[in-house]
Amino acid sequence: MPAIQLAVPLPTPPLNVVPFVSVERMMRLVLQTGIERFLAELAETIENDFRRWNSFEKHSRLAAHSRDGVIELMPTSDGELYAVKYVNGHPYNGRSGRQTVAAFGVLSEVWTGYPVMISEMTLLTALRTAATSAMAAKYLAPQGARTMAIIGNGAQAEFQALAFKTLLGVDQFRLFDIDASASEKCARNLAKAGLSPKILRSPEEAIEHAQIITTVTADKQMATILIDNMVGPGTHINAVGGDCPGKTELHPDILRRSGIFVEFEPQTRIEGEIQQLPSDHAVVELHRVISGEYLGRTSGNEITLFDSVGFAIEDFSALRYVRHLLRDTTDYEPLDLLADPDDPRDLFGMLMRAEARL
Amino acid sequence: MPAIQLAVPLPTPPLNVVPFVSVERMMRLVLQTGIERFLAELAETIENDFRRWNSFEKHSRLAAHSRDGVIELMPTSDGELYAVKYVNGHPYNGRSGRQTVAAFGVLSEVWTGYPVMISEMTLLTALRTAATSAMAAKYLAPQGARTMAIIGNGAQAEFQALAFKTLLGVDQFRLFDIDASASEKCARNLAKAGLSPKILRSPEEAIEHAQIITTVTADKQMATILIDNMVGPGTHINAVGGDCPGKTELHPDILRRSGIFVEFEPQTRIEGEIQQLPSDHAVVELHRVISGEYLGRTSGNEITLFDSVGFAIEDFSALRYVRHLLRDTTDYEPLDLLADPDDPRDLFGMLMRAEARL
Repeated sequence: MPAIQLAVPLPTPPLNVVPFVSVERMMRLVLQTGIERFLAELAETIENDFRRWNSFEKHSRLAAHSRDGVIELMPTSDGELYAVKYVNGHPYNGRSGRQTVAAFGVLSEVWTGYPVMISEMTLLTALRTAATSAMAAKYLAPQGARTMAIIGNGAQAEFQALAFKTLLGVDQFRLFDIDASASEKCARNLAKAGLSPKILRSPEEAIEHAQIITTVTADKQMATILIDNMVGPGTHINAVGGDCPGKTELHPDILRRSGIFVEFEPQTRIEGEIQQLPSDHAVVELHRVISGEYLGRTSGNEITLFDSVGFAIEDFSALRYVRHLLRDTTDYEPLDLLADPDDPRDLFGMLMRAEARL
Repeated sequence: MPAIQLAVPLPTPPLNVVPFVSVERMMRLVLQTGIERFLAELAETIENDFRRWNSFEKHSRLAAHSRDGVIELMPTSDGELYAVKYVNGHPYNGRSGRQTVAAFGVLSEVWTGYPVMISEMTLLTALRTAATSAMAAKYLAPQGARTMAIIGNGAQAEFQALAFKTLLGVDQFRLFDIDASASEKCARNLAKAGLSPKILRSPEEAIEHAQIITTVTADKQMATILIDNMVGPGTHINAVGGDCPGKTELHPDILRRSGIFVEFEPQTRIEGEIQQLPSDHAVVELHRVISGEYLGRTSGNEITLFDSVGFAIEDFSALRYVRHLLRDTTDYEPLDLLADPDDPRDLFGMLMRAEARL
């Protein structure tokens, strides 16, 4: 795959207009590109941005917690572009037909502060989460791994499977969910995508012979999806579901036996599996492995854990990649988002002059 | 004016759709309502939300500073609704025909985390800033004040004048700007709105006989718009322009002679005029005056200062008020922002099924 050049600018719309990528438009972009190519190029974009980690302004996300869930803002900037994602996490949303995780994002120019793209990110978050998991596993999973267990078969599961197939060549998928219909939905979708997943009746059966275990459940509570004696030497654990205070998936004994890799340590200490460990327990930020500063997996017997909570740079990369896909088109919805008076100081005059017209 | 009831829900759109209020739609809402009534009802909504201050989750805004300006996120929630505003501040944007301050905002339901409205906020911020200033002045300006100096005649100036006219009956406006064409633009607009402003050649002349001084300049630097001996006893200063670290408008000696009122103290300590004072210098949060806990102005000789930087609750109130205005209409742009698969867990299936259609 050739290196992706993301520098090409969009055709310049009028100053009041911000290009909008709707859900429909995002689906078209993904399907036109091909899901696997989209995942691969997105993973490469994220990997490249992680490699220049120090050029980003980084914050833990700003979370507003409530009884039913959380609303989060995830901003970051590399000094040229600024991105922020709005994302919720509401485990009971399914009861009213809504997504557990819904999101949208904004990409802006730093020199003007003006948004240059607004995009749906529910679908894009699912894609970037899977791309990040598989990108991390390139450094952390055992060589030649072909079997992955997926515990939790909700909205994120198929994307994980496809990303691991595309980036690592994993082709055996073992599914478990406490809700059998979720596993059936997942298996059906993966079969249509050309894979042959197996549905298992317990987490123990699902992880048999799996070199990679992906946990991606959604309950907002301490759950113990995996206990210590279930995880054999050499396994790579891709822990995706635990991602806020009080929400974890792994027994702490597993953590103590694992080499732990995280995205942005200050955020993961609050939100990740490692919230169960003392705050000085050693972890390695993934970007240090990508840059070659630290080794990832060091032996075939080691247990590695990617304690993934999702970080703003992944969303920055995803928006940057989508903008790249839009580069030669005006096939977006133009949003009349920014007031554009003839004289920038004359906002009031713009309003008064509109009176005749409206 | 009857009390505003803001509880009426919007007609329920499909789950994928978020109502969008464009700049054009916002202008129509303001003009249909009438600018003065809009300002008065907005001020009342802000005042009511300030009165229930303790029901809000409050943060200082999250600011990304760069050489050219700042991009800020301003979130808050009352447990039922969540609002966040994206706003930039780029003093040199006028050179490329852009607004110094451009903004948009999102209003969401806390129980689902789903956005229920996305709105332009460039115009709305100008309106809410002016409404907040005038609402504060009801408590702080000298009784019967009819003359206001406006130092800085850019995009915000006319809104300030109209809000003070509407809420306090101020009808004499004395304008000064280092750029004479800005004053002329402002005077022209105010004349059309039925006012008779005077353009003066210096700040000293502008503030003669003014009971209220509004400073609303835009340079991102320590500027001294007012020095101590210019401000006589009994004056109310409405300081709007200084609103980020390193950006102030008043000489610190003025601050030391004034009763200082702020929106949210932790944020104003960083961004307001009081960044020039020791961090323990006494200030009063405006909501305490509104609730009756503290007195505002206590004598005719006192200098009062509203050190305004803009706070998230004002934007929350503004979005809530706009939603109220939209209550009986579907006259908004429907944004296809949120993925809505038939089965919420089946995001991947939604994508695959779209293949046939797209």
